[in-house]
Amino acid sequence: MTITMYDLAGAEDARRFSPYCWRIKMAMAHKDLDVETIPWRFTEKDRLPAGTKTVPTLIDGDTVIGDSWEIADYLDRKYPDRPLLQGKSERGLAKFLTAWTESVVHPALTRIVVLDIYKHIAEKDREYFRTSREARVGKTLEAFTADTEANVAAFQKTVHPLRITLRMQDYLGGDAPNYGDYVAFGAFMWARSISPVRLLAADDTIAAWRSRLLAAFDGLAGKALGYPV
Amino acid sequence: MTITMYDLAGAEDARRFSPYCWRIKMAMAHKDLDVETIPWRFTEKDRLPAGTKTVPTLIDGDTVIGDSWEIADYLDRKYPDRPLLQGKSERGLAKFLTAWTESVVHPALTRIVVLDIYKHIAEKDREYFRTSREARVGKTLEAFTADTEANVAAFQKTVHPLRITLRMQDYLGGDAPNYGDYVAFGAFMWARSISPVRLLAADDTIAAWRSRLLAAFDGLAGKALGYPV
Repeated sequence: MTITMYDLAGAEDARRFSPYCWRIKMAMAHKDLDVETIPWRFTEKDRLPAGTKTVPTLIDGDTVIGDSWEIADYLDRKYPDRPLLQGKSERGLAKFLTAWTESVVHPALTRIVVLDIYKHIAEKDREYFRTSREARVGKTLEAFTADTEANVAAFQKTVHPLRITLRMQDYLGGDAPNYGDYVAFGAFMWARSISPVRLLAADDTIAAWRSRLLAAFDGLAGKALGYPV
Repeated sequence: MTITMYDLAGAEDARRFSPYCWRIKMAMAHKDLDVETIPWRFTEKDRLPAGTKTVPTLIDGDTVIGDSWEIADYLDRKYPDRPLLQGKSERGLAKFLTAWTESVVHPALTRIVVLDIYKHIAEKDREYFRTSREARVGKTLEAFTADTEANVAAFQKTVHPLRITLRMQDYLGGDAPNYGDYVAFGAFMWARSISPVRLLAADDTIAAWRSRLLAAFDGLAGKALGYPV
């Protein structure tokens, strides 16, 4: 049976920008599993299966899961004979990497891209998006993102631990990518999908890692609609 | 044959404050290996074995290693039948955790404790320490550490990814500590050994994790000379 996944989309069906959804699309490819993605918008809560209210939401036969970490766990449990996303022993540190990505990297990126998100989402999503995000940051999106140069400099500093790590090895997983790589890479796909801002210098070690992941799985991520990086 | 390790000491032989040395003392206990530590001071470069110039330096028979990460790798390779510090698959993410600890946590702690280090080291180390550290930060140690309250608040924010992770699991390694735990814990032992400043609120999840590691291995870390936390 086909596995399906609700995937956050912009105004165009092909513009898929959720960092959490990108984790799972890369994870599915890692496990060599096909997935049919269904474009979904912020204001379509009613279209999601009962009991879930966020994306990615994965539907595999009778199983419905609406959380990226739980989906990754499920995929390894359900399909243990395909390449593992993470062994039991690395799962603990992947939780730390995920906490760092969500509490440090995503907020630093939000300052750069949140207005670009607004510009790329469907008309019907815009009022909800602007109102909820401006309430969260206490400013207009325009004021919050005004100083791109400073925000990019702050972002580049924020990701320095990633840079140090990737000077010593090709992937966060070591010689090959694992779920932690897809978690961190999801943040870069989020930006790439909706923002023309250049986040990294061409000679940044992180940019080389990003290129490897953009090319992985026959260019799954690199061929997606977005801005050149 | 006894394994020995050069271990950074303060004015008293018993005051051992290097975060890097604490990683390895915890790692040796994890592997249930005895180690004889030799107190060593900053200005005693000449006392270290040829080819090494930093501590921890481990001497195991003919093997001499002067880098904590390489020592951890060596211990797992040389003693594979004892509990592993890190499996091959988690080694990649442990590198990230180490990069984060050294590039984010240590600098935030330095702002709090560097003057306390100065006060606790041997008389003969003080001029070297003050001169080299003041050159690095561009201020007197007194000026650099003046606003303890603000520095502690900044530190507590810095370690937030650790806090999120430890709300979901007891250790960075998951159900049990692994090398990543000892790397992060080393930073807290550094502070505890030389500074009376209270870094964490009593109800901080990180404090509970620190308590578990202070108690581990018959209280190896908790019994060491330092300030109550």
